[in-house]
Amino acid sequence: MSTTQRIAAGVEYCGVNYCGWQYQKNAASVQLQMECAIAKVADETVRVTAAGRTDTGVHGICQVIHFDTHSKRSPHEWIRGVNRYLPDDITLRWVKPVVDDFHARFSALERSYRYVILNRDVSPSYLHGRVTWHQAELLVKPMQEAALALLGRHNFSAFRAASCQSKDPHKEIRELLIKRDDKWIWIDIRADGFLHHMVRNIAGTLLRIGEGREDVDWARLVLAGRDRIHAGVTAPPDGLYFVGVQYDRRFNLPVPPKPCRFW
Amino acid sequence: MSTTQRIAAGVEYCGVNYCGWQYQKNAASVQLQMECAIAKVADETVRVTAAGRTDTGVHGICQVIHFDTHSKRSPHEWIRGVNRYLPDDITLRWVKPVVDDFHARFSALERSYRYVILNRDVSPSYLHGRVTWHQAELLVKPMQEAALALLGRHNFSAFRAASCQSKDPHKEIRELLIKRDDKWIWIDIRADGFLHHMVRNIAGTLLRIGEGREDVDWARLVLAGRDRIHAGVTAPPDGLYFVGVQYDRRFNLPVPPKPCRFW
Repeated sequence: MSTTQRIAAGVEYCGVNYCGWQYQKNAASVQLQMECAIAKVADETVRVTAAGRTDTGVHGICQVIHFDTHSKRSPHEWIRGVNRYLPDDITLRWVKPVVDDFHARFSALERSYRYVILNRDVSPSYLHGRVTWHQAELLVKPMQEAALALLGRHNFSAFRAASCQSKDPHKEIRELLIKRDDKWIWIDIRADGFLHHMVRNIAGTLLRIGEGREDVDWARLVLAGRDRIHAGVTAPPDGLYFVGVQYDRRFNLPVPPKPCRFW
Repeated sequence: MSTTQRIAAGVEYCGVNYCGWQYQKNAASVQLQMECAIAKVADETVRVTAAGRTDTGVHGICQVIHFDTHSKRSPHEWIRGVNRYLPDDITLRWVKPVVDDFHARFSALERSYRYVILNRDVSPSYLHGRVTWHQAELLVKPMQEAALALLGRHNFSAFRAASCQSKDPHKEIRELLIKRDDKWIWIDIRADGFLHHMVRNIAGTLLRIGEGREDVDWARLVLAGRDRIHAGVTAPPDGLYFVGVQYDRRFNLPVPPKPCRFW
């Protein structure tokens, strides 16, 4: 019996046509597409584990996955082969053999998301499903000020979904930047980990502050309240991109790509 | 009998699901979607004329149209009403009553296009159909140098489609800029007018030069040859955006929007 090799890979995808990353019965998932395409190249059944289970409609810029296989292929052969079997809206970006104790989810030290908003009165047309359309005018300065209260290690219970299965609501937000250019607003957020819906609930809260419906101090009060009921509504998945994951240097994985200004 | 009012409007759309701007039997066109949506708000049949007839798969950032109507609506009522009846991939950006001698096509003094390329080995996933994917590595410097030969007024027969119906092959290119950021390349082109497929044929020629398959001087030689057969292949429509149109100031129309860096 030959031994298996653990393989890590970076995946980019458009979430519009999927129920999210994770396999669900009777729904198209990114995971199932990946497993089918890899199985065809590996010539055996393959189970794929991802760094983060993105929700319905959420996109990936560099989702990181791992799988174990008996097949011997070069990274170039994996990339060429798997991409041939993937649909147009999913792409394998890189592939790298890794040591057996690497785990795409549990070895992750840090994750990054970008939330993209088109702030204008008419809908996004060619970016439909790829940005969040917000009609009411947003002021970025109060959003930036409010974001400061969320930086650092906190109990983020106020920003977790009712369905969240995480045992520990404490996470450390290491970066939370809001930038604007004309009608475009980007929220960049980096943390050691995220609770279910945490990015979208934070975005929803910042949007209310940007609209002037709540004061700057409201984000701090919501956080301190530790109760989901006080936060803003969950912002839509359309503009949410899972940008990348950081791992220990000993795994020697590619650095997450610098997102282009837009993404 | 009431008199009609001529209305000008700016339209943004994603070309992916359409046979192009112009009405075609048994195919979905942007024109038909616009005419149906406007007719519902105007409560009468409306014929729409556009500044440029974009091809299958080509997108619009600010296509300009005009139509005549007996209906009296404020710009706000037109925008709100028409956008309610348009599909998600078409958006009415602005509306303005104009004098009767304004003509979206014949009054146009200048048109601008942007051609967006993703230059990397793996496909674009969430931007499928919205950028042109080019696998072979492109060098921007020779493309920029080659572009200089195309600036100014010339006979562009070498870059027109066989099906082109224009009587005069002379056009004046006033700007032709190529920029790169990481894996992204933008070709911005501004002229008094364009022949059929002219932007995509120029892009195809510059792509061959960027790949190093032809010398910088080749663009000048192709232009001088005035024969379509010598130019590069027509570049795909995926990355092509009709950015906007300039008219005489007396019409007092909105300035074409500054495209965001990406588009």
